[in-house]
Parts: sequence; structure tokens; C-alpha cells
Amino acid sequence: MQTGPENRRYLHARIEAGFLHDFQELIRTKTVPQQWKAMNDEIPDAPPSHSIQNLRIAAGLAEGRHEGMVFQDSDVAKWLEAAGYLLAEKRPDDAQLRAWVNESIDILERAQQPDGYLDSYFIVKDPPGKWKNLREAHELYCAGHLIEAAVALHRGTGDTRILKVATRLADHLDSKFGREKGKIRGYCGHEEVELALVKLARLTGEARYLDLALYFIEERGTDPKFFELEAKAPGFAPIWGAGQPLEYFQAHIPVRQQREAVGHAVRAMYLYIAMADIASEKGDEDLAKACDRLWESATARKMYVTGGIGASATLESFASDFDLPNDTAYAETCASIGLFLFSSRMTRLNESTKYVDVMERILYNGLLSGIGLDGESYFYVNPLEVEPRRCDGNPSLQHVKYRRQKWYGCACCPPNIARTVASLGEHLYHLSGDCLFVDLYHEGVLEFELGGHKICMRQVTRYPWDGRVTLAFPEQTEMQFTIALRVPKWCSAFTVKINGRTEGAAKGADGYCRVTRLWSGGDRLELEMEMRPQRIYADRRIEADREKVALRRGPIVYCLEEVDNGPDLSSMRLPIDAQLDWRWEEDLLGGIGTICTKGSLERADIGADRDVRNGDPYPERIPPTETIMNELKFIPYYAWANRGPGEMRVWVRE
Amino acid sequence: MQTGPENRRYLHARIEAGFLHDFQELIRTKTVPQQWKAMNDEIPDAPPSHSIQNLRIAAGLAEGRHEGMVFQDSDVAKWLEAAGYLLAEKRPDDAQLRAWVNESIDILERAQQPDGYLDSYFIVKDPPGKWKNLREAHELYCAGHLIEAAVALHRGTGDTRILKVATRLADHLDSKFGREKGKIRGYCGHEEVELALVKLARLTGEARYLDLALYFIEERGTDPKFFELEAKAPGFAPIWGAGQPLEYFQAHIPVRQQREAVGHAVRAMYLYIAMADIASEKGDEDLAKACDRLWESATARKMYVTGGIGASATLESFASDFDLPNDTAYAETCASIGLFLFSSRMTRLNESTKYVDVMERILYNGLLSGIGLDGESYFYVNPLEVEPRRCDGNPSLQHVKYRRQKWYGCACCPPNIARTVASLGEHLYHLSGDCLFVDLYHEGVLEFELGGHKICMRQVTRYPWDGRVTLAFPEQTEMQFTIALRVPKWCSAFTVKINGRTEGAAKGADGYCRVTRLWSGGDRLELEMEMRPQRIYADRRIEADREKVALRRGPIVYCLEEVDNGPDLSSMRLPIDAQLDWRWEEDLLGGIGTICTKGSLERADIGADRDVRNGDPYPERIPPTETIMNELKFIPYYAWANRGPGEMRVWVRE
Repeated sequence: MQTGPENRRYLHARIEAGFLHDFQELIRTKTVPQQWKAMNDEIPDAPPSHSIQNLRIAAGLAEGRHEGMVFQDSDVAKWLEAAGYLLAEKRPDDAQLRAWVNESIDILERAQQPDGYLDSYFIVKDPPGKWKNLREAHELYCAGHLIEAAVALHRGTGDTRILKVATRLADHLDSKFGREKGKIRGYCGHEEVELALVKLARLTGEARYLDLALYFIEERGTDPKFFELEAKAPGFAPIWGAGQPLEYFQAHIPVRQQREAVGHAVRAMYLYIAMADIASEKGDEDLAKACDRLWESATARKMYVTGGIGASATLESFASDFDLPNDTAYAETCASIGLFLFSSRMTRLNESTKYVDVMERILYNGLLSGIGLDGESYFYVNPLEVEPRRCDGNPSLQHVKYRRQKWYGCACCPPNIARTVASLGEHLYHLSGDCLFVDLYHEGVLEFELGGHKICMRQVTRYPWDGRVTLAFPEQTEMQFTIALRVPKWCSAFTVKINGRTEGAAKGADGYCRVTRLWSGGDRLELEMEMRPQRIYADRRIEADREKVALRRGPIVYCLEEVDNGPDLSSMRLPIDAQLDWRWEEDLLGGIGTICTKGSLERADIGADRDVRNGDPYPERIPPTETIMNELKFIPYYAWANRGPGEMRVWVRE
Repeated sequence: MQTGPENRRYLHARIEAGFLHDFQELIRTKTVPQQWKAMNDEIPDAPPSHSIQNLRIAAGLAEGRHEGMVFQDSDVAKWLEAAGYLLAEKRPDDAQLRAWVNESIDILERAQQPDGYLDSYFIVKDPPGKWKNLREAHELYCAGHLIEAAVALHRGTGDTRILKVATRLADHLDSKFGREKGKIRGYCGHEEVELALVKLARLTGEARYLDLALYFIEERGTDPKFFELEAKAPGFAPIWGAGQPLEYFQAHIPVRQQREAVGHAVRAMYLYIAMADIASEKGDEDLAKACDRLWESATARKMYVTGGIGASATLESFASDFDLPNDTAYAETCASIGLFLFSSRMTRLNESTKYVDVMERILYNGLLSGIGLDGESYFYVNPLEVEPRRCDGNPSLQHVKYRRQKWYGCACCPPNIARTVASLGEHLYHLSGDCLFVDLYHEGVLEFELGGHKICMRQVTRYPWDGRVTLAFPEQTEMQFTIALRVPKWCSAFTVKINGRTEGAAKGADGYCRVTRLWSGGDRLELEMEMRPQRIYADRRIEADREKVALRRGPIVYCLEEVDNGPDLSSMRLPIDAQLDWRWEEDLLGGIGTICTKGSLERADIGADRDVRNGDPYPERIPPTETIMNELKFIPYYAWANRGPGEMRVWVRE
């Protein structure tokens, strides 16, 4: 287990080229500027955000009413957090972003109340309602995002003003919440502040913040149930008033007793992240075990092949084990991001590549599917199967969109994608003892400290399109340590070479292949993972995928789109022996690998069909069909819906 | 086309024994008394109805607030309508029911306002709101149900008090609605009053009521859209405030232009019934054609094999063509009832057995599935596939119940079942010219008038369990006319005998087999329909049913239940050549026919499975399974969920 001090060791990765770099640059050059516009209500034909304006009103810089969701402030905070990661790289063209950030910090400083309180909804719209409806009001959630932003900005830019805002806010929370007399013995309806307080504690070394996070975690779900008491207290005013069950908030039983990932999927993930952080900080084995059980529940029984979680649109919630329909899927982008971040924590808590396999599954599939290749359009919901005709005609599918949207009334996902992609450098490697774990492959450099020495390393790869990875050390290196290379689960054959010579390297029980050596300047460690198109199948308890197959190459899951394959994808069949040909298409969708194969289309024989049915949709003979062989082209799932509306499907009949 | 006068010809059928009689007796002896209790809030552990109490408050007989839905009055009206049909039979033990009816009429008489207005919600809760929110307030809908009740009660018992209430109410509506100056140029958000006014016009001969119905029909969906104007008018107060599209109310375009069954399924059906009634009354071919198009849309492309319609739980609405998922199905009982009643009208408008085939499909499947065999528990939603584990864990399946419920906060379905089953006598036969159409088979007697003569006929059959039907005439008969026997679509072989001698009778293009003869006392007309278990298949555009089969015998659709077959029904497979054995089980579920066959269960080979997966729910090899042969027992779908909770499934893998 990686405990407190391990979390504070120096490690800085920089993505310099390739797939992840392209996405980070997209975020930096397109998404972040577009989101600033969105938050300032400057995007035509998109729902207004009101989020900057709300804060300006709270700051006394503008007049008007609070508009939008109760948690609208958090969009600004997530955007600022993204800016913090981006500004850390100190690029020459940072001035505009820095100016927007400073403008935001000005507003936040002014909006903060003398006692440290900061939430535009209650400052502007309902001052007496402060802290009276923790179940719905998201005040602690918004505080958490602001704290996360402050930590990222301070680390990225050295800014102390935003850190001051965050510590004043955290001190205010510390004065308001806890078991002591006069404090509110409650916790937030949407977890987030807990993990943020851990971050702030790590940055500032202030133990009170960690204790407050621990209090929130431990108090959750205890008897008597806080949300039930709160709803009966004087001054309680419902905001939405829907009677979600306590499971929705993961507040049904104490967190250490929770064994199943339930309720609102994003809430669940943010809770589990904080649990893992605290388990790590405190060396708390019991809490770590609870985390592992919950991780297993979420990933082995409730996760789509794309890394999507939270199958139910109603309550944006987990469904029961193996209930993973493809067409009605919710699979919110934020929930996948939450699972990515939770898995990243778990990797550091219990060394095992299984966590990184999930991170990778999410990153290259269900996370990036949430943003268009233009960097300015989004999916909140990530289905695995779409028929526009059905979506248009069925109100129960109204959550499933087949056109990416510019913004949302509830815009949690877009800035969440921005901050997560911007922060990828934090999730590529980790250190434990004298071992460097290489988790996610990328083109770029790493600096880290080991035994008091600063070490630099360069990684060269075309991953995820190519399975070859080279790690190289500059001239001055001279240090003995272990490099643990992750061998992904999808990879069944790999070789390791040192300076061109093949080593008899084996994968450990934890999935890492360890190489210990006195690394010297000019050393080259090469990992070559066989990467070929693969058929994958679902656990047979997932009924929606039965008798179907999906295609994968490396970490990337593929899908069929109507634009390449024509309509009626549900009638296409991939023969069990069809050859799968992967090829690079430089001019398609910004450069992608596609998988081409031969399939068949079962089409209703309309003439014969009419004859059999004679007006009865339920005839006594199997309606006749004709089978037509055709070419099938699969594209990466993350790249779907970038060429106009049409059908899409991941799981295909075999 | 059967026009106005045809609708007023004397025809009275009485169900005296057998399947339908048992259900009518269940309704009479269990359901109707239980519903009286429910409406009086006397059922423990069930949501209170408040419906009688609301009316008592409106009548000045009690004090308090209006509680429950805005359309709560309609439950009482539907119950009274059921009572009207039952009391028509003048049974010796009618006294209690008659007393309840009289008590209700007393309350309604007193609750009615001096101007004829009668709606407890607005009388008690919001007098200034009267007629100001037609889109949501259901005032005309409630008025319609009251008028239907009055017509049934007056016809059944001769009561004039309730008829007076209804005509005063209808006169009030006539004074308030229409194109004339000073009147509201609107229509109801939930169709119902239109068809009720036609009934009242037929009973009273008052043309104004028919004209008002015609006005409501013709006005609907015209420009400018009434619901949009209304929402901007002074005094408009939203009740729910959800922004349903105009399609939800079938108010998007004028009704004659409507080609697709869209929106709220019950609303749609009640509209189409009135359209068919008016087409019939007025001999309006154009309107009749619109009805036929809409009937075709609803039944050929949007209907479950059980006769359920309205696939979408969200907005209780139709989905697009062939989008008929079995697990998330809504298929509200009321919607099936609406389609039953609409089809009954269509049978009379355009002679064709196809309409009666749908009536029968609904009656023996998706309608009776809405009531438990105890007569005191109900289903609002009628799925074709249920896994309790999934329902419990998935909030998007919260509408799917696997335990029948005693009552509902929105209790539209229970009294709708009661009135429909009680009124079955009205749907068994129809007359056109000198032809008697025998539509639905039953054990009992028919009296009708032809050429000025009253004719009596007895029908003997064990239908739907047996395909033999005998029609016999008493001594004094001596009349030449045609009998048109419906040959159901499910029946591929039949014989007709007259007085024991086989006739070379053929089915006409309309599906009826006609026998013209001078019928004399003692004549026996026998129809023998071959009835055997059949495999049926779905139109292949219905993706949820692809590669699956359902079983049917006669009009009855069958299903598997966990109690007979064990769990994991989704893994059961019915081999294409498995023999289907039907047998009568006197002691099962009150006496039912079952279909037994051999099937296979594909079970995960757990050991091998774990080996392959190694913690990954998406392995590269098809997870191994073992196949176990077992006995399968199918029971009639309508009888499911009468033996405790468990899985159920209509469509089985073949």
C-alpha cells in the first residue's frame, strides 16, 4: 500500500507527442477557450451557462438573479482546474488563458463572504438557506471543486490568491461540520469535498483538512440518517423534492460496510476516490478493502466494454449486476471519469495492472467518446448502440443523443473532460519504494526522484496505434532501480529488450513485468506488445450482448457506423471466421486505425414477408430473409458521431 | 359502413358460463366490491384513493381538502359504469351494489353545481381555475367518464337521476365550448368526452351532443394551437408543468391528417374511438379512412404480441415503428382497453375480422393480464419479460412490477378493467343489414331484432380452450338471415356443420364465413376450429424478438414462469423441432391449459468461465457454457404473477 509520504514524492510527466498529446492540445486550443465562452453565455444556439454571471452577481460586480442549476459554480471550478494543469507546462501562448484565470480568481475573491463561504446560488438566491439542505444543495460539492481548482492552479502557476480562497473556504467548512457541539453533523448529497480536502491537506500539510475529509467519510450512512433528520429540521426547503432513496447518495449504510456500487454513479465514484485517498493517507487496510470490493462491483459486474458505468438513465444510476443494455445505456461521461480517477487511486493502493487496464479502457473509449473531434461538442450519455429513428420516436430514449451538443443546462461533463485530459500526466506513472511503475504509455518525458536523485526518462511510442514502447535515459543517468512495465490484459504476447537484446522478462502476478538494473545514460528499454484486431465477448450474464461480438485492437474498442456500413446495423452479422484487417487511415477522422472485414446483412425479403404476414406482425412462420454479403468497416468507438447523425453499434451479431 | 341507425338496433348478449363468465363473475363478486372499498380508502397497505371523499367534500357532505390526482373523480365514474353493465342483468343479489350506486348518485347530485359543472378538484381546491387549463386539468375527461357512467346506468337500471346529472353537465359543456363568440375554443388534454358525448347523443337522440363531440374532434390540432394560447392566457396555472410535446395529446395536427399513432397511448385510443363513432354516425368516409390508417399504425407496427401498446414508460407513450422492447415495456392496461374499444368500433365501421382478431388478442392476453386471479390486485404495466433482480436494481425499470398491486395513487387501470369486462356483452356480436356477425365466442344467449322480429339464439362453447362452437335456435324461430362466423387469423382449418351435416363453407375476404338460411327452431350451426399449440414469430424489424419464438394456442399467448421452470429464463432455448403438448390442468391457476415441451438451458460453466475471464468481464473467447435439457412448461400469459414473484418471459430463444 502506498501511504501518505509516497503520495508526495516528486514525479512529473509531460506528454509531448502522439495520441494523448493531440487530445491535450485539442483541449487546450479548442475546448478550454470554447468552454470559457460557454460559461460566459457566448455560444449561440446552446443553453446558456450563467455560471460566470452568477459569480459576478455574488461578487457584486453585476446585478441580476441566479440562473441555472444549484451546482452551476462547479463548472467554473472544473474549468479552472483544467487551466491549472495546462498552465503548469508554461507554454509561450498562455497569456490569454492566464488572463481568463486571473479574471475568474478576481471574481471568486470578491464573491467569497467574510466568513469564507462561497456559493453563488445561496449568496444570491437564498442566503437563509445556506447549509440547510445538504442533501440537494451541492454546496459542499461546489466547495470541493473549488478546492481542487485551487490545488491545481497553485501547483501549476504558484498562484496564492486562489489557494487563499480555498483555505478560507476549507476553514469555514471545518468550523461548520463535525461531531462537535454546535456543528452540523452532516455530509453532502453529492460527494466531492472529501477528495478535495485530501488534496488540500497534501498540498498544505494541514492535518485538519484530512480529518474533516475522514469525518465526512465516516459519518456517511450512519444512524440516525442525516438526510432524514435534515428534511424535518426548521428552514429545510426542497430544491427538486424528488424522493431519491438513500442508496442514490451512498448514504444507506456506513461506507466501510458498502459492498456493492449503487446509486448515482458519479456520486459513488467520487466517494470511493476519497475512501481510497484516505486509506492511503492513513494506511487504513479496512477502508482499502472496502474500496477494492466496490471497485470489483463496479468493474467486474456493472461496467460496459467501453468503460461506461451507471446503466440507468433514471437517477443516472447503477443497475443490478450484468444489467447492461446497450441502447438505453446512460454511461455518463462524468461517471467514467470518476471510475478512471478511482482506478488511478487503486493502482497506487494495491499494485495491480487490473486497475490500469480499466483506466485505459475508459480513457481510449468511454471518456474520449464524450468529446467530439472538434473539441467543442460533447456527449453526456455514451450508448453502445444507437438508432436515430428509435431515439426520435421513443420518449424513454430521450437521454440518448446521436448528435454531439455544444453545451448543456446541466454541463457537468464538458469541463470534467477538459480537466481530466489536461491532468493525464498525473496518471501515467507511479512510484513505490525503488520501483517506477509505467502504467499508461505515451510519447514524452518523465522526471522523478529516487533515493534523493532526480531522474529523467524519455518514452517513445505510437501507442495506442502501435504496441512498441521505448524508454531511454539521458547521458548523465546512473541509478539502480526497478522499472515495472504494465503488460495490458489485452496483450497476450510481448517481448522486452534492453539495448536491443531480448530479455527473458516475465509478467508478475500483479501484471507488471519488472526489470531491475543499474540504468545508465543511453540505455534503452524496449517493450513490444503484439497488437492485433481481436474479437471479444461478454460475460454471458449480460443478456444484451449474448451471441454478439465486439472488436478491439490494443486498448481501443471499435464500432460500426451507418456512414461506413449503411443502415440496419442490427441486421449485420460478423461470421465467426471472418478475417479482420486493421489499417491506418490518415485521412479519416483525423487519422485512425480501422478494422475491415466481411460480414453479412440479413434483410427482410419484403415480398415473401408480406405474403406470410398478411397484416399480422406475429406470423406462424419465421419471416423470410435474404442474406447479402458485404464489407464491414469498424472505427474506434471514441470517434463515433463525428460525421453527422446515423446508426452506431459496438456489439454485433456473430 | 354501419351508420347511425345501425348503431341503435336492438342486440343484447348475455354471457352465462365459461371463461368470460368466470371473469365477469370475478369482477362482480370480488373486484367491484374491492374497488368500492378502495375508493372509500378502506384498503390497508394500499395508497388511498380519496375519490369518494373528494366528491363528498364537493357535495358539502364532508369537510377537508381535495387529495389525489386531478382526475380522481374518473375512478368513481368508471366504477359506476361497470355497475351499470352488471345491474343490467338484474341478478338476485344486486341489492348491495344498487345501494352503493344510489349512494354515489346522491353524492354526485349534490356535488353538481347550479350551472351543471361537476369536478371535485376545481369545486373544492381551485374554483377560479375552472376551464383555465384544459391541457392538464382533465375536467372534460372526467365529465366524459361521468357521462359514460350515466349512459350505462340508465340503460342498465333505468335510473333517471344520474342521466339528469349527465345531461345537465353536457348542457353546461355545450354552453362553454365551441366556435361561437364567448365560448372557449378549446379541447381536452385527455380525450374521452368526445366518445362519451356520442353515447349520450345515441341514448337521448339529442343532436347537440353529437355536434359538440364533432366540434372537439375537428378543432383538435388546428392552428393556432389551443394549448399554446391557453398557457399564455391570464389565470393559467400549471398543474404538473412538464412540457409534453403536442403529439402527446394528439394535438399537433388536425385529426384527419394524422397518420401515425403517437403520444400518450390511452389518449390516442380514446380519440380514435370518438373519430370512429363520429365517422359511423355521420357516414364520414374521410374520417373513417383516418381511423383505419391510425388503427393500422397502432396494430401492425406498434403492438406487442399480447395486444399491449405504448412501449415507452416515459410519457406512457408510443415509440417508433417496431420499437417494442419486452423488458422495459409499458403496455399500460388502459391502453390495451382503449385499443380493444377502438377495434370494436372499427369492426362495425369496416367489416373485417382483422379488428376482432386484435380485440381477441387483447382480451385474452394484455387486458386480463392487468388483473390478478383474485380479482383484487392489478398490473398497470404489462411487460413481456421480467427479472425481479433487474427490476429491483435498475431505477429505469421502476415502472415494471412483478407483484400485483392492490391499488394505485393513479388508479386509472383497475376500474377500467372492471367496466370493460362487465361490458363484454356489447362486443360479442354486431348487426349489419340482415347479417348477424358473430365476433367473439362465448357461452350464453343472444337476443336481437331483425326485420321487426325478435330473435333468440344460444351459443355453446368451451372457447377459448376449445375451438368448437354451436349456435342453436329455440322452437319458435323461423327467419331467413345470414350468420357471419368469424374465423380467427390463428385458425388455419375449420369446418362448418348445419344440423350435423358438414357444409362447404368458405371464409370471405373479410375473414367471416357466411351462412344464409331460413333458420328454424332446433337448427344447430356448428363451427369447429382446429386449435393446437402454435409457434409464432415476430416481424424481423422488432429487434427484441429476433431469433426468438412465442407460443400460442387459439387466442391465448403463453409464457414461461420461474415457478414452473426455474430461474434464468433468458438462457432457456426451445429447439425448433420440440413437440408441443397442450393439456388441461384443472387444479392450476383456477383451471388453465398449459403447453409442455422439452427445452435446453444454457448455463455458464462457472469453473471454465472464471478461468477464461480471470477478472475480465469481456474475454477474448466465448465464455464456455454447458447445455442441460429440461422440461419447459408454458402457462397463459394472462395468468402470470399469481404465484408469487419470479421471472417471466413470453419470447424465448429458438
